[in-house]
Order: sequence, then structure tokens, then C-alpha cells
Amino acid sequence: MNNYVHDIPTKICFGKGSISYLKQSLQQFGNRVLMTYGGGSVKKSGLYDEILKILNDEFEIFELSGIEPNPRISSVIKGVEICKENDIDVILAVGGGSTIDCSKAIACGVYYEGDDLWDMITHYEKDRKALPLIDILTLSATGSEYDNSAVISNPDTNEKIGAVLTFPSVSICDPTYTFSVSKYQTASGSIDIMSHIMEGYFSVTDDSDLYDGIAETVLKSVIKNMPIALEQPDNYSARANLMADASIACSGIPEYGKEVGSWPCHAMEHELSAYYDITHGVGLAILTPRWMRHIVEKDPSCKWRFVRFARNVWGLEGNDEDELVKAGIDALEDFFRKSGVPMSLSELNIDETNFKAMAAHANRNGKLERGFVPIREEDIEAIYTACL
Amino acid sequence: MNNYVHDIPTKICFGKGSISYLKQSLQQFGNRVLMTYGGGSVKKSGLYDEILKILNDEFEIFELSGIEPNPRISSVIKGVEICKENDIDVILAVGGGSTIDCSKAIACGVYYEGDDLWDMITHYEKDRKALPLIDILTLSATGSEYDNSAVISNPDTNEKIGAVLTFPSVSICDPTYTFSVSKYQTASGSIDIMSHIMEGYFSVTDDSDLYDGIAETVLKSVIKNMPIALEQPDNYSARANLMADASIACSGIPEYGKEVGSWPCHAMEHELSAYYDITHGVGLAILTPRWMRHIVEKDPSCKWRFVRFARNVWGLEGNDEDELVKAGIDALEDFFRKSGVPMSLSELNIDETNFKAMAAHANRNGKLERGFVPIREEDIEAIYTACL
Repeated sequence: MNNYVHDIPTKICFGKGSISYLKQSLQQFGNRVLMTYGGGSVKKSGLYDEILKILNDEFEIFELSGIEPNPRISSVIKGVEICKENDIDVILAVGGGSTIDCSKAIACGVYYEGDDLWDMITHYEKDRKALPLIDILTLSATGSEYDNSAVISNPDTNEKIGAVLTFPSVSICDPTYTFSVSKYQTASGSIDIMSHIMEGYFSVTDDSDLYDGIAETVLKSVIKNMPIALEQPDNYSARANLMADASIACSGIPEYGKEVGSWPCHAMEHELSAYYDITHGVGLAILTPRWMRHIVEKDPSCKWRFVRFARNVWGLEGNDEDELVKAGIDALEDFFRKSGVPMSLSELNIDETNFKAMAAHANRNGKLERGFVPIREEDIEAIYTACL
Repeated sequence: MNNYVHDIPTKICFGKGSISYLKQSLQQFGNRVLMTYGGGSVKKSGLYDEILKILNDEFEIFELSGIEPNPRISSVIKGVEICKENDIDVILAVGGGSTIDCSKAIACGVYYEGDDLWDMITHYEKDRKALPLIDILTLSATGSEYDNSAVISNPDTNEKIGAVLTFPSVSICDPTYTFSVSKYQTASGSIDIMSHIMEGYFSVTDDSDLYDGIAETVLKSVIKNMPIALEQPDNYSARANLMADASIACSGIPEYGKEVGSWPCHAMEHELSAYYDITHGVGLAILTPRWMRHIVEKDPSCKWRFVRFARNVWGLEGNDEDELVKAGIDALEDFFRKSGVPMSLSELNIDETNFKAMAAHANRNGKLERGFVPIREEDIEAIYTACL
């Protein structure tokens, strides 16, 4: 069992009606608020009006709207300008991972001293100074509400980078806000949750019992609850479990005690969505089973982990290890397919044109040559090709 | 799934050598340190000398030693005096739950404005002001390193009270410090961990999938790792898993989303150790299977939960629910017995003399009449009697 440091200061107010914590949460930091959100869904759902009603005259509210599903550095730049011009005390992000990620970058960007905010995204710095950030979550997916990282895109350079920035101070997680999430977004969000677990679950470490058990618990919870949420969008239990699953999945906790992986599927997917602006969870659904089959063939010594995956996550039985490995991966692919997301790149009109460049960039600094089963550019190209 | 608030600010530095975080952790608060510890074990193990060597001339160190296994209000009073007289900046607790609990009470006691510190223990107050507290954990049991509560005893009144006080700022959790823990203490600490889970696991809520799964994971981890640690005291994996299990078990996390229980076994055990000063985990081992059998008989509608316990925790199979219920409870009792702890009150020379008074006090304010299966004084007396 490896060493780890657990240090997550975020307070989570979870459950129906937890917006009752909003006012006191903001008040501790001041009354000049930048409210950030994406498209019109927060207005359509009535949440926007509900927030304004709660905050009424006690707060001065500024707004940044239109944050993209893969949030861009241009939105970060806009948000930083608003904060600086208006002496903002606290940021209130209303939305899913994209809005929260963009808001984290804005929160840190206010104190960033360099000339180019894209440099802040591409360079790690410990304990960045940041404006306080409070979020109201409306999508169960990225776990940005309970971690300190953010994924920001730069269309000029075809880059999509995960940066370590700042934790939210308070995350308000009301599952009823996800009742209106479409089937497509529910599925791709759930697949993202599962991917966050699987990236760390497939590890060379075999003795982190508590955290492997937590990882398997999250996977089993999504496997149970996603189909219910797809069938019954307003099933509170299902939506609540998915929301709780999302927060813990990307918190780092399921990886504690284990050799930290290279998160290969995320690295490969970030290239797909940087080049083609596809939905993150869909890219992960397409890539993950192909990545699994590729590494099992490349290095059969990793099979023990897939046997455990088949047994403990999918409840599969039998003693033939090769069959269990295959059945576990097939079960995962089948589960993704049944959720209704596209399961090949061809369906998204993506061909092999950029595979070489994407593979090189996914493996920049040789980062995918570390981890559970190291892969190189030729492996990545082969995995992309298997996804066609 | 019920609402909850997750708000645990404690940083955990986990693993071999994590004492390397000690100096920087203390420095953020100042250089006048009250070091608290229990009997001589921290000196015998060399940890005391190791700490002094690390802190050498940069810190001024005051000491409170001799903190009891069931820490007493008299030790709290002594500690508060030392802090006030010497303008202490930060408390460093070195030991297990008793030392950390006592130190939490000292940390809050410094700012307590009443005349009698026992009143602070018996009366709840939100967000108490407290001195910063850092701990170095030497026993996997109470989880005091990752919660804000403390159990303090008052021999004058035969009371043992759990109070909500303050979180540690940093907990240094190095499993190697538990290599020297005796079989008896390893067993009773592990039983305490399991009890913290079971008190919340037996709940009327049936849809908190993530947190029920975490609860079952912790139980399975203890069931796997305690016997290894008893056989091989220096097995790092086993000691590490038990240490991680302990912190999460009492954090409240395994109960999130669930109807909060009344923790009946802890309430009944606190009476036992208040009257007879027995080891907490041993009292829990004796009480828990008897409590289970009593409530299953009293209210058979609770059986569904014991069926789940038998299947998911003990891996038992079969379709006869009554048999599963019995087999699950038997498996637990057998597991406790095999750990070598006494499994009856008679073995501890305890008879029925005080059962009536203890039952009344355990159920003060009718607290055990809420929860999974409500019990009254006559039930508690019957459970104590079954433990003879």
C-alpha cells in the first residue's frame, strides 16, 4: 500500500433543498459575486431565477454566461477581466464540470501574474492563490465539485489540458437539479464517472483493499443507477447515488494507496475532444474497451486485474481466467452501448487523419509510457484505429 | 437517500515515513507546543525520541503524559492549565484515540468560558473555538484522527460521554507505528472499527448504495486484515489497511444518505466501561452479537438488513432468510472470539448488580428509543444479561 496525502477542504451540502446553504456560504466571503453558467439550461430550469430570488438585494451580482461544454481559455480570460474590473469577492458557478472548471481557472487567473493565462493552465504551481469558489452542481459527471483540477481547451493550438488549480469552498449538490438532464448527457456523465474510477483501478498495486473496494462500490453503483436514471429521469435515489458517485470518483480517494496511473483513456480522449469537440464521456465510452483489449493482448501479465474486475464489479463467475477477462470487458462495452451513446468514431465522422498527431500529443513527455501497462505512440494509434 | 453535509477539514498524511510532514505542519501554527501522550509506549517504541530530534531547538515543547485509556476530565483540566500558563500555540497528540480525544477537549477547553470543564463535555455547542491540534497516530481504532468527537470519562459520576469538539488539523498516520501494538489491543481496536460501521450500517434506509458499499468494504477489509495483523504484527499491508479503515469508519461518511442511528452498542458499552473501566472494543465485541439477536427477535421486520449483512459482508449464500440472519451474526461472533478477546461479561468479573442503573443511563432522554430497532430499558437489561 503506497503513501498518500488526503487534503480536500471542500464542504459538500448534499440533497434536495441544499440550496438553503447558499446564502450563508457566500456571505462568509463577501457580497460581490460573479455568477458563471453555460447555455440557457439554468434559466430554462428556473434555477437562475431561484438563485436571484435568494440573493435579492444583499449581493451585487455580475455574470459570465455561455461557458462552453469544453470550456475555452477565452471564457477564462473574460471571467478574469470581470473579476478584476468589479472587485469580485467570490465566484458562484452554476452548472456542470465545464462551468466549474472554467470558474476554477478564473478564480486562480485573478491572482496570476504572468502575461498569458494559457501559461497558467499549462504550468503546474503548488497552492495557487485563488478567489473563493462556490458551486451549484447540475450534472453528475466530472467530479469537479470535489477536486482541484480543471480541463481547459485552447482551440488555437488544438490543446485540451487538465490543470491543478483550486478546490471549491462549498459545493451544493441537489440531485433534483439533474432531473432535467437528457438521456445522452446522463449516459455520458455516468461513463465519465466510471472512467475516473477505472483509470486508477487498473493498477499494479494489489493490496489497497479499502480503496479498491471503494472503487468497485462506485462502479457497481453506477451500473445499478444509470439505467434507472435513463428510464426514470426523476428517480431521486438513482440521481442522488450518481451525484455522490461522481464526487468521490474524481476525488483521488479511490486511488489512495495505489501506484498512481497515467490515466491513458483520459489522455487519449482529450485529444479526440480537442480536435473534434466531441462529448468527453462519449469519447471515453468508445476508447475504454478498446484500450482494455489492447493492453491485455500487449501484456497478458495484467490479466489478474481484469479477472478481479469481472468478478467484483460485474459479478461474473467461473475459473477460466481468459474467459473472465473477455467477459468483463464485453460487459462494460455492452453496458455503454445500451446507454445509447455512439460506440465508434465513424459514427462521429472521425477518420484516421489526425491519429498520428493525436497519439504523439497524448503521449507528450512519454507520460503514457508509465502506469499499469505502458503504451507508446504506435499503441495509441492502434487503439484509435480499433475505435473506427 | 437522506441529505447530508460533508465537512471534514483534516489533512491526513498516510504511510511509512509520513512523520516528515510533522515540522511543516506544526510551523504553520507557531512554535510553542504541548505534546500529549499516554503511558510509556511512545518512549519505549522510540517515537518520543524521534519527535524530539525532529523538533530540536526550533520548538518549545511542554508535556502532558499519563493520559488514561479511558481519558478522564482530570487530564483535560491539567492540559488546559498547561496551555494557559504557557501560551501554547498548537497541541501535538501522540498516541491512540484516548490521547487524541483528551487533546481535543484540551484544545477547546482553552477557550471555554464556563467554570466547569465537565459542562463543556456534556453540552453541545456548534463550531467551538479551539487551539490547532496535530496528531501522530499509534493505534488503529477510534478514528479520532478524522472526526471531531471525543469520549471523556468522569469517575466521580460514573459517566463516559461522547462530545462533539474539534477536528485535528493534520493527522500523521504511519502504519509502522502500530507494529508494536499487542494482539489484545489490535483485536479490540479492530472490533471498534467494525462497530463504528455496524452502528450505522443497520439502518432503515435502503437506497444509499455508495455509502452502504463503503461500509461493507471497510468491514470486509477488517475481516481480511485483522487476522493477518494478529499473526504477523509487522505486516505492513495489513496494518496500513486497518489504519485507513479506522479513519473512514468513524468519519460519518459510511452513514451519509442514511437515517442516522442511535449507536446503541456504543451507548451500552460506554456504561460498561464507565462502571468497570474495561477496554472499549472488548465491551463492543461482547455486546454486538447479543444486541443483534435481541432486535431480530423483537422486530423481525428488520431481517432484510441482516440478510444483506450475511451476503455482502460474510459472502454467505442460500435463500433461507432466517438461516442467513443467524449465520451472519454467528460469523461475526465467531470472528470476534477467534481474535482472542473475552466474549462474556462473567470473564471480566462483571455481574448484574449495576445493569438497571446502566440501562437507564444508556437510554437517557430516550435516545435508544429512536433508530433502526428502538430499544427500551428492559431490552437493554436483557441484552446485558445475555452477555453474562
